[in-house]
Amino acid sequence: MTEHLPDTSTDAPDRAVHDRWVAVADQVAEQLRTDVVARDRAGAAPHAEVELLRDAGLLPLLVPARTGGHGGSWLTALEVVTRVARVDTSIGHVLGYHYLHSWRTRLGRRPEAIERLAAGTAGNNWLWGGAGNPRDAGLELTRTEGGYLVRGKKFFATGAEVSDRVIATGTDVGTGDKWGFALPTRTEGVVHGQDWDSLGQRMSASGSIAFEDAFLSEDDILGPGEQTDPGAPAYPTLSALGFQVLLGVLAVATAEGALRFGAEYTRTKSRAWTTSGVAEAADDPLVRVKYGELESQVRAARALTDRAGAAWVAAASRGWELTHAERGEVSVELSAVKVVTTQAALAATSGVFELTGARATKTGTGLDRFWRDVRTLTLHDPVAHKAIEVGDHLLGGAYPEPSGYS
Amino acid sequence: MTEHLPDTSTDAPDRAVHDRWVAVADQVAEQLRTDVVARDRAGAAPHAEVELLRDAGLLPLLVPARTGGHGGSWLTALEVVTRVARVDTSIGHVLGYHYLHSWRTRLGRRPEAIERLAAGTAGNNWLWGGAGNPRDAGLELTRTEGGYLVRGKKFFATGAEVSDRVIATGTDVGTGDKWGFALPTRTEGVVHGQDWDSLGQRMSASGSIAFEDAFLSEDDILGPGEQTDPGAPAYPTLSALGFQVLLGVLAVATAEGALRFGAEYTRTKSRAWTTSGVAEAADDPLVRVKYGELESQVRAARALTDRAGAAWVAAASRGWELTHAERGEVSVELSAVKVVTTQAALAATSGVFELTGARATKTGTGLDRFWRDVRTLTLHDPVAHKAIEVGDHLLGGAYPEPSGYS
Amino acid sequence: MTEHLPDTSTDAPDRAVHDRWVAVADQVAEQLRTDVVARDRAGAAPHAEVELLRDAGLLPLLVPARTGGHGGSWLTALEVVTRVARVDTSIGHVLGYHYLHSWRTRLGRRPEAIERLAAGTAGNNWLWGGAGNPRDAGLELTRTEGGYLVRGKKFFATGAEVSDRVIATGTDVGTGDKWGFALPTRTEGVVHGQDWDSLGQRMSASGSIAFEDAFLSEDDILGPGEQTDPGAPAYPTLSALGFQVLLGVLAVATAEGALRFGAEYTRTKSRAWTTSGVAEAADDPLVRVKYGELESQVRAARALTDRAGAAWVAAASRGWELTHAERGEVSVELSAVKVVTTQAALAATSGVFELTGARATKTGTGLDRFWRDVRTLTLHDPVAHKAIEVGDHLLGGAYPEPSGYS
Amino acid sequence: MTEHLPDTSTDAPDRAVHDRWVAVADQVAEQLRTDVVARDRAGAAPHAEVELLRDAGLLPLLVPARTGGHGGSWLTALEVVTRVARVDTSIGHVLGYHYLHSWRTRLGRRPEAIERLAAGTAGNNWLWGGAGNPRDAGLELTRTEGGYLVRGKKFFATGAEVSDRVIATGTDVGTGDKWGFALPTRTEGVVHGQDWDSLGQRMSASGSIAFEDAFLSEDDILGPGEQTDPGAPAYPTLSALGFQVLLGVLAVATAEGALRFGAEYTRTKSRAWTTSGVAEAADDPLVRVKYGELESQVRAARALTDRAGAAWVAAASRGWELTHAERGEVSVELSAVKVVTTQAALAATSGVFELTGARATKTGTGLDRFWRDVRTLTLHDPVAHKAIEVGDHLLGGAYPEPSGYS
Repeated sequence: MTEHLPDTSTDAPDRAVHDRWVAVADQVAEQLRTDVVARDRAGAAPHAEVELLRDAGLLPLLVPARTGGHGGSWLTALEVVTRVARVDTSIGHVLGYHYLHSWRTRLGRRPEAIERLAAGTAGNNWLWGGAGNPRDAGLELTRTEGGYLVRGKKFFATGAEVSDRVIATGTDVGTGDKWGFALPTRTEGVVHGQDWDSLGQRMSASGSIAFEDAFLSEDDILGPGEQTDPGAPAYPTLSALGFQVLLGVLAVATAEGALRFGAEYTRTKSRAWTTSGVAEAADDPLVRVKYGELESQVRAARALTDRAGAAWVAAASRGWELTHAERGEVSVELSAVKVVTTQAALAATSGVFELTGARATKTGTGLDRFWRDVRTLTLHDPVAHKAIEVGDHLLGGAYPEPSGYS
Repeated sequence: MTEHLPDTSTDAPDRAVHDRWVAVADQVAEQLRTDVVARDRAGAAPHAEVELLRDAGLLPLLVPARTGGHGGSWLTALEVVTRVARVDTSIGHVLGYHYLHSWRTRLGRRPEAIERLAAGTAGNNWLWGGAGNPRDAGLELTRTEGGYLVRGKKFFATGAEVSDRVIATGTDVGTGDKWGFALPTRTEGVVHGQDWDSLGQRMSASGSIAFEDAFLSEDDILGPGEQTDPGAPAYPTLSALGFQVLLGVLAVATAEGALRFGAEYTRTKSRAWTTSGVAEAADDPLVRVKYGELESQVRAARALTDRAGAAWVAAASRGWELTHAERGEVSVELSAVKVVTTQAALAATSGVFELTGARATKTGTGLDRFWRDVRTLTLHDPVAHKAIEVGDHLLGGAYPEPSGYS
Repeated sequence: MTEHLPDTSTDAPDRAVHDRWVAVADQVAEQLRTDVVARDRAGAAPHAEVELLRDAGLLPLLVPARTGGHGGSWLTALEVVTRVARVDTSIGHVLGYHYLHSWRTRLGRRPEAIERLAAGTAGNNWLWGGAGNPRDAGLELTRTEGGYLVRGKKFFATGAEVSDRVIATGTDVGTGDKWGFALPTRTEGVVHGQDWDSLGQRMSASGSIAFEDAFLSEDDILGPGEQTDPGAPAYPTLSALGFQVLLGVLAVATAEGALRFGAEYTRTKSRAWTTSGVAEAADDPLVRVKYGELESQVRAARALTDRAGAAWVAAASRGWELTHAERGEVSVELSAVKVVTTQAALAATSGVFELTGARATKTGTGLDRFWRDVRTLTLHDPVAHKAIEVGDHLLGGAYPEPSGYS
Repeated sequence: MTEHLPDTSTDAPDRAVHDRWVAVADQVAEQLRTDVVARDRAGAAPHAEVELLRDAGLLPLLVPARTGGHGGSWLTALEVVTRVARVDTSIGHVLGYHYLHSWRTRLGRRPEAIERLAAGTAGNNWLWGGAGNPRDAGLELTRTEGGYLVRGKKFFATGAEVSDRVIATGTDVGTGDKWGFALPTRTEGVVHGQDWDSLGQRMSASGSIAFEDAFLSEDDILGPGEQTDPGAPAYPTLSALGFQVLLGVLAVATAEGALRFGAEYTRTKSRAWTTSGVAEAADDPLVRVKYGELESQVRAARALTDRAGAAWVAAASRGWELTHAERGEVSVELSAVKVVTTQAALAATSGVFELTGARATKTGTGLDRFWRDVRTLTLHDPVAHKAIEVGDHLLGGAYPEPSGYS
């Protein structure tokens, strides 16, 4: 029973554990910074970057200490993702999704699988990816000896290409039952499209994944697939909201990264404008005021994102006791997060160029990657439809219907 | 010594105390709601409203239990102010300033005065006002037997006209020393201009106050006036930041009030637009999405304001140990609060009309008071100069210079 | 036949006529300026103001010279309205609607009525009002000897209360035929609700009008009421677009008025902020840049409004030859005008307070009337639904369906 | 004397000439469209593209018919640039600058040079570039037999690399006199840095140009270099404003291009969102309203840009009679153009992604080039300092001081 497996990742952070892994994240970020512009330009799958995360020990952060992990809190994980994403949003994306995908195993209610996979993550430093884009057709499961053959394709599967385990859901073509499962990525018949070539998030390996009769062992079945019908328990539907938490964190962290990068550039490289009456660009009142406006917006977006992140963790700590109303409050809050992080992050990452000046458009500078990453990230699902959800709640108290996005 | 007088108002809220007084605030707000439109139009000094606050027992909320008060936390007080201000920003303003003015007595380092005035507040349900507008000339103190004669004028003194005690600072014309003091408002020679007639905050009694040789007893001297020079302790300079906390809370609460009022109006009174294809205005996607955008912005402003409010309380709990760097972080955060609350509150209070429709411009509806209050409140000091402070911190780590506004 | 009655108001402006009446408008505006704040506060019907317009000779501006008028162009009229509205939006509103209502007589195709009414306007300096709010139920016409009895109510009838002629449309309850007509306002049974008490446009006499069996003479019937079905000619549907032209002009003129008023205030009354480092508020870079941003937006709104106004006049000059496609282009353009004038005018009239400072919120200053007028005006019909029309045209080339608003 | 050389380019457009060359521009644009995404990615100097412009006959558009050109108007040229830039902003940029650089020859007051160079442009289909970036050090001219040796470097010289003639200004190191000149680009010692690799405008060949003792013949001297001191004539200072006209046109044309491209994409490729309740993305009210908002903004920016463009042409038609006040009005207007085109074009080119959906971020789609081009273009000089100029004019009637940017 799941109640025998306390979810230590929803506990309040232990200060020492928190500080340790945030410091590790900062070191990783410093390494990523050295060549982020070149790597972004190349846009390759982040094999080396995942190795860096693995060597740093960040992957089993959420695995309970009892199972060999670091026993970290989700609040620590979100801060770790923030530190990485301020420098390299793609890698923050892969890492954040890893945490969520590995955590999602517990939504299946099969304690032995949960523990075994958690132990595998801790013991082998597995990276988790997912194949769950809700807008594509579902995967098909055909009964075979000892398990299933998986068939189907998902067009966006962030991180799957560089992962060790892929979490997904499929439908038994015989019975119509939906099952969640966790497949070793290197299973025969798992094919990566290597077709991710996008404006931003270029190192996030977000291309397609195909399952061509890949064998799925009984053991790797997690339990019934996520259900979104009203009578279903609320807890498993936290999964979709977890992605929204991560997307909010990634957007706001990227904005923070852009403003810090920009401020450093302004202070060290920009020239004061001829009619500004000051000697240094950083002394120009028009530069100072706009940095302040952008930073203020970003601080507000951060405060709301953190509040929502904490609400999601609190909801997760309720486990199977979670009610749909409690879940609904978190969902509305996360819809608001999407609205404000999108606005603030686009404003910051595009506006910062007005504060650095024309030379910062040089390709080698790398200031543009922040906007490109944010513009790509925030299209995950349409922000206007999130605003509708917030409006509906204000107008009549409604909660968003649970789905792959809300 | 002040260390013998623990400041219970900076403790974490006791849940029972918190819930009790927030519930009382809600009842007060419901009473204020019944005639707020008419009272706003009249724009008189809020004598009856203060009586309501007094009868409800809200005035000694922050006074320690040991001194006869409710022993409430500042975090409770900010929530109480929020509940009132969502309905009636003027009265929220008067109440919030009351809390701050009475709390400021402790910055003077005269324990016996602190305790005596706190006991007076608790025992007599005093309302506190202030006469401290930093942009006016300072008050003059002339030595006389047993104290001073006070002379001078302040053009804006929110709440003073309806108060029982006025806190102020003056300069001894003989020695040049600055002294903080707390004068009984009904002292002879204290004259209220009754000249407040403004676009908004019409019931906040924010007109002028003159001191025409009003007698100030030695006993009512609180200690040296607030100093802002770099060598001075940081703690007393939290006073100016407290006003910024309150202004942020008032702005965001007014925005929340406007959106709630508007949503109720839309749901119950607005007509669907002819080409909208829906039967009810509240079902129009264009109405729903804009409510959601405004509400999301306001949620972000609220999250940042609450974060900053908590930071101010934490700083206050440090007392005389507070460092200038700690204080500086709070100050920057509050400058950001000003920027985002101004934006969000103006957008919400002006934009809500597009969601209620033309009929809501009727004078009797009262929807306009929210914008008028916000527009008036947020001009307390210029928002662009707050943005500069945030920008300077981002660019070079600077903290705003302590002043009457930062 | 209408072709025998050339519409000189759609000709290019005669320079001398133009300059003369614009100069007259400037003089009228100067007179209106002297007490606009007091009149706005009182909010009475503008009897004296209409007398001022009448005495100045502005009312028959569009009446052809051959019929005793000034033979002015619509482009001149729009400039005249602008000059008045920069100071007093209400009176600009009444005047602009007068021009449109009197011009609308020609859409009925009864040349003798057109000429007679034009001569009446010129000879008697009539002011025209209308009773046509499309969202109210239609007026009923019951046959009686020599004409009809008119019955019904319109809740918003700008200017009707102070007018000499009211233009309206009603339905013959016997036959179902719709007729346009022009009634002497002082007809028995025409009752003004005197119920206009709104946030803004307080002197526009925009309250209700009731027809309680008011007698309508055959002679005052203008022709078939405006039809919006697809097969109907496009020309009469320019009427609804004329209101959109005027609303755009009024909004942008009010914004121009607010910025000019504000700039004068800043230059002569505002105090430089303490940390601005300059002696005069008008030298503060943060003040200068924001004035520039607001003014730039307003200039763009003006340029588009003028372009759209000229397009409407050109369409009107096509008369009964006008095609629905030509009309559709003007309609889309005017929807865009609504979007940008609403944005620019709200931004300017609300934002200007940040540039004048807190003292400008004093009731006597009158700076708030600009925002109140704009906020009221721009709710005439919902701006978001105008944006939809612009979007539909971009997406698929569609034109707004002719209606009372598009 | 210049008065013997009427500047037909400032005449009103001849309709037939206008229509002919706009149609040619449309054909050129269609050709550029076929491979614009690939060319943008490559980012090479636009040799082939210039050949396309040359073959189409667009280069001598402004050359008077009497001198062998097409006798086109500047208003036609601006429309030609618009048509090209909606598809390919880089090539619009090169073409627009060509028109301005060739036109600038007349500011030197040497009729024979003006005519000879115009005849050369017409006879040889020359493309003109410039080497005038005002923020770099000036070029040095050393006397030699028959002319000068030119020495120096300019870091940004849009189009120079692919040009036939380069216009520039240098200072005689002996006398200190400044001279404008027009050098054959293929002169020995003219070296192109081929160092343009930027976020946007990737095909504009905007890299550096160096003059390494390049020989300048007496014949190629145009006259005294542009002077900006108050006593100097205003006419030559129109040159700097001409760049502002072009930058405004390019920004708004790019925004128009992005919205058209986006609307086509939405209509043909986007999928309706799951909760939108419509079958096609183009029917989603939230998509339609946002397209409308962006398009309305862009229309306003266009209207102001066109108004300013016409004002610049009118000023140019005044020639040496032009006063500084007349010139100042145009300069303020162009500063406003910068403010609104920057806003509108960034909003449109970034916001359009929310209307096409996530798949449009694929590199091959090419939707991102619009934002990248706009973001690069609009940094030519800082928009906030333009806003200051508009503000100063509103506050005190001041005109921007003539410079390389205003």
